[in-house]
Amino acid sequence: MEANKIPDIIIGRLPIYLRALQRMADKGMQTTSSQELGERVGISAAQIRKDISQFGEFGKQGTGYRISFLIDKLREIMKIDRIWDVAVVGAGDMGHALARYPGFVNRGFRITMVFDNDPTKVGQQIGEFTVEDTATLVERIKGAGIQVAMLTVPASAAREVTELLVKAGVKAILNYAPISLTVPEGVRVQHIDPATHLQRMTYYL
Amino acid sequence: MEANKIPDIIIGRLPIYLRALQRMADKGMQTTSSQELGERVGISAAQIRKDISQFGEFGKQGTGYRISFLIDKLREIMKIDRIWDVAVVGAGDMGHALARYPGFVNRGFRITMVFDNDPTKVGQQIGEFTVEDTATLVERIKGAGIQVAMLTVPASAAREVTELLVKAGVKAILNYAPISLTVPEGVRVQHIDPATHLQRMTYYL
Repeated sequence: MEANKIPDIIIGRLPIYLRALQRMADKGMQTTSSQELGERVGISAAQIRKDISQFGEFGKQGTGYRISFLIDKLREIMKIDRIWDVAVVGAGDMGHALARYPGFVNRGFRITMVFDNDPTKVGQQIGEFTVEDTATLVERIKGAGIQVAMLTVPASAAREVTELLVKAGVKAILNYAPISLTVPEGVRVQHIDPATHLQRMTYYL
Repeated sequence: MEANKIPDIIIGRLPIYLRALQRMADKGMQTTSSQELGERVGISAAQIRKDISQFGEFGKQGTGYRISFLIDKLREIMKIDRIWDVAVVGAGDMGHALARYPGFVNRGFRITMVFDNDPTKVGQQIGEFTVEDTATLVERIKGAGIQVAMLTVPASAAREVTELLVKAGVKAILNYAPISLTVPEGVRVQHIDPATHLQRMTYYL
C-alpha cells in the first residue's frame, strides 16, 4: 500500500471518523456500524466503508466495527499513536486560547513552546508556559526536533515566521493568520480563518 | 444563473481569492492577473480563471482583473457587501479570543452578542460585550434577526445549543466544538477543530 496514493480528501475525513469513534468509546460503546457512524458525522455509510477499506479490512459484514480496534488503526494511520510536540508562535488572544485549550489531550498533540517577538510578552506566563522570544525560535525548535507548529501572528508577520519555522525543520503548520502561505515541498499547511469560513456560508443565505 | 448550481468547492475558494485581493488593494495595487493571484494563494491560474468565470466576465484578456472591481463582485456574490451580525455562544478562552478578534472588520461580520450558561460568566465584560445568559438566547437572537453564530461551547453542550440556535432562526453556524453537528436543511455548519487539522497533516509526516 503506497501511503501517498490515497486521495487527500479521504485523509481529511479520517480525523472526523476518529473523533466520533472516540466519543462512542467514551460512552462505553463497544461496536458500531458504518450506518451509525455515518449518522453521527453526516457522511454516507457507503462513503465511510469505502474510505476505511482503503487501509485494510477493519470491519466485518454483519457485526460492523470494533470501536477500540478501529480507533487504534486510525491513530496508527494518522501517526497519532504517539504524541507530537507543538510550538505556538504568537502569544495574542488566539495563542493564549490554544495554549490553554484542553482539546489536544488524547488526540496526539502537546504544546511545549510558545513564542512571541513582543518584548512585553516574552517572559509572560500562559498557563504552564513561559513565552519565549521568537529570535530563539529556530534554535529552540530545531534543538527539540519539533515538526508541528501553530501560527497565530498577524498576517503581516506570517510569511516571515513561516520561513523561520521551515528553517527550523517544521513540517506541518496550522495557520491562523488570515493570509495564504506557500511552503516548500515536504511541508504542509492548513488554514483556519473564521472569516473565510463564515463567507463560505453567507453565499447560501 | 442558478446560484445553487455552482459546486461548493468553488464557493469555498472565493473567500481565499477575496482575502488575497484585499491585501493587494491595501498595498495600493490596481490590477492583477490570474497568474499573480494564483501564486499568492497557491492555486493554478487556470483554476482561478475557471472559478471566477462561473459568475460572469470580470477580467479582460491581456489586462487581467481590476482589483477593486473584482473585490466588489466577490463581496456581492458572497453576500458580504453588507455587514452580518454574529452571536458567539460560549465565553471561554476561544469565545474571548473571537469576541476580541480584529479580523472580522471589513470582511462582512460584526459580533454583537456573546452568550454563556455559566452564572459566573453571565454579566462579565469581554471587550465591548456583556456576556448574556444562554437562557435568553432564542428570544434575543430571534428578536435581533441574527442569522450567523459561532459556537465555542464544550462538545458535550454543542448539540443542545445548536438546537437553540436553529430554533432562533440562525442559518450559518461556525462550530469550534470538537464534535460533528447535524442541522436541518437550510442551515449550514462549518467546523473548526485544530486537532483534526493537525491530524490531517501528521498522516504525511
